[in-house]
Amino acid sequence: MKTLVILGSTGSIGTNTLDIVERFPREFRVVGLTAGSNDEKLEEQIRQFKPSVVALSDPAAAARLRQRCDSLPVEILAGQEGLVQIAADTQAELVISAIVGGAGLVPTLAAIRSGKHIALANKEPMVMAGKLMQEEARKHGVRIFPVDSEHSAIFQSLEGHRREDVRRLILTASGGALWTVSREDLPHITPERALQHPNWKMGAKITIDSATLMNKGLEIVEARWLFDIPESQIDVLIHRESIIHSLVEYEDRSMIAQLGLPDMRTPISYAMRYPERMKLDLPSLDLTEIATLTFCQPDHERFPCLQLGYESLRVGGTMPATMNAANEIAVDAFLNGGIRFTDIPEIVRSTMDAHTAKSVESLDDALSADRWAREKADAFVHALTR
Amino acid sequence: MKTLVILGSTGSIGTNTLDIVERFPREFRVVGLTAGSNDEKLEEQIRQFKPSVVALSDPAAAARLRQRCDSLPVEILAGQEGLVQIAADTQAELVISAIVGGAGLVPTLAAIRSGKHIALANKEPMVMAGKLMQEEARKHGVRIFPVDSEHSAIFQSLEGHRREDVRRLILTASGGALWTVSREDLPHITPERALQHPNWKMGAKITIDSATLMNKGLEIVEARWLFDIPESQIDVLIHRESIIHSLVEYEDRSMIAQLGLPDMRTPISYAMRYPERMKLDLPSLDLTEIATLTFCQPDHERFPCLQLGYESLRVGGTMPATMNAANEIAVDAFLNGGIRFTDIPEIVRSTMDAHTAKSVESLDDALSADRWAREKADAFVHALTR
Repeated sequence: MKTLVILGSTGSIGTNTLDIVERFPREFRVVGLTAGSNDEKLEEQIRQFKPSVVALSDPAAAARLRQRCDSLPVEILAGQEGLVQIAADTQAELVISAIVGGAGLVPTLAAIRSGKHIALANKEPMVMAGKLMQEEARKHGVRIFPVDSEHSAIFQSLEGHRREDVRRLILTASGGALWTVSREDLPHITPERALQHPNWKMGAKITIDSATLMNKGLEIVEARWLFDIPESQIDVLIHRESIIHSLVEYEDRSMIAQLGLPDMRTPISYAMRYPERMKLDLPSLDLTEIATLTFCQPDHERFPCLQLGYESLRVGGTMPATMNAANEIAVDAFLNGGIRFTDIPEIVRSTMDAHTAKSVESLDDALSADRWAREKADAFVHALTR
Repeated sequence: MKTLVILGSTGSIGTNTLDIVERFPREFRVVGLTAGSNDEKLEEQIRQFKPSVVALSDPAAAARLRQRCDSLPVEILAGQEGLVQIAADTQAELVISAIVGGAGLVPTLAAIRSGKHIALANKEPMVMAGKLMQEEARKHGVRIFPVDSEHSAIFQSLEGHRREDVRRLILTASGGALWTVSREDLPHITPERALQHPNWKMGAKITIDSATLMNKGLEIVEARWLFDIPESQIDVLIHRESIIHSLVEYEDRSMIAQLGLPDMRTPISYAMRYPERMKLDLPSLDLTEIATLTFCQPDHERFPCLQLGYESLRVGGTMPATMNAANEIAVDAFLNGGIRFTDIPEIVRSTMDAHTAKSVESLDDALSADRWAREKADAFVHALTR
């Protein structure tokens, strides 16, 4: 029986993880859960999965939860310290890192430093401090299993083959909700429209990132650190159907790919049980039913965020953290109706242009770039909305 | 430096293998070559690759070659004994088994029994005596590396993953030259038309097998023995573009696939250098150029040979050898203008119907079924052409 902590248990990845735990109660035991502010959903999860400790980032939500769970044998913590305490101090073999955004960095790094293996669904820790994360993982003998469908596909396509024979990683991208929208129409896109992802049901932030292709920009950075490969060897391919989740090209021009229906439980369960595969009893991929898989080049004019991902890696240091923080601010402003869809890449680019990158030697280096970029991006947002 | 023997050096696989040797003269040394009757091409190969021994199945061709190579330091053998002697007695680490048809069985088994690893391009040894081949390989510590693009793809898609997690093997099939021809027109197809394969440049026999889908029927049998998996877990998928060379589905519904441009040098070189991949400097697969990959179900009405493959495995024993031998006779008769394209599956089915299968305990069991089936199929051909 494997013991688990889930950071971000009420989100899309968190609930999918718990769905797997529910199907295989003899294989996993949940010892800790954390969430942001959704105390009602966390209460349900406490009653069903009986963790010994939980935390909510939002202290008010934690207070409400304490009242309602007074009679239950569960410790309830609050704030980032609570998250870090659960990540670091619980006796878990595997931590599912599924917090959305930069807030996941500190607890994920705490989990690594306490020697727990990581199932990483949260891109931002690798984006903000990939080099540091990998150094700490090596130092503490920790394995980081990717959960993102693309990185899980790369991971699976590398297994059993020699790393020195790798020529390219090819990340596939659905193109998101707005792939067919013309350049002229993009500025007038509403958040509701941008949230209509063709294949994946995900949270709002990542769905917008998918529409801007910033999601793929972040994934390039994540891949660079997860697989220790320069960005010049990472390509992106638009594949609308999201069936081939990514590919690896080897020196003999052979490609290995991982395919499947878009269901996050497949990569989650692989990370949870690696190297074993779980009999999830999900529907089988029938390629004759899909009938056609299509591929095309990314469009950098309409979707400049992908190139920003490459640029952030070429500059290196704190630049990816800066890009990520500016993007979080811009996406938030777009979702709240403050800026236009096409302002998102403009704000990110302007913030990056204003940034002088330094190397990331410590958590503080990443966090202070993150704070600086949030303030800077906020100022750009205010300039647009004033 | 790896020492090689090539059985069938003047055919398509043989010449592709020598193309790789030519590019990597420091990695491989050719010690023996065999061919059927093409003494002129074999002479060229002798002059270029300087093997110490060669053999031609056709004694008259061997006599001609002896005259012309009188001054060269090469021993020239003749007949099946010559092929077997080269397969068994030379000091080679790897034998490329690339003879077309059932004639490959005896020398390939001889190579296994003398402890040489096998790069297997010749399907028929596994079809005629798969169980025996695998038993002998285990006994002599021999590895059999598949060279067929589909089986190489399966092999590559199994590497690094647990065999107990395999749910299905999915062999892809181009559908061959006649996939778009209607049932009414199939009886009137000429050999020239049937030889126009859309993707692969191969020999005549295998190109016709591709058009009848018997090639896939044979590959099911080969896969059953190569990967020790029952036929009920082997599926076939029509994929016209021949880009995804085959797939493996695992228990979590994840699929791993191998992709590439149709170039036999990729699977050949992987078998030659496993687990390393060679820098062949072939063109890279650009999926955006291909743009679309399509998939559909096989059509068993127009192309009944695929089902014959499954049936031969369900009966087992000598039935696959019988199917294979009858098919060789029927394809030969079709190529020589004696029978119609649609007579090929009829002759194979009639021969199988007339056969009482026995288990294959020895080479003789396989060879006598082969002989019996050839005579029987010949009789059916004569009945049609009389």
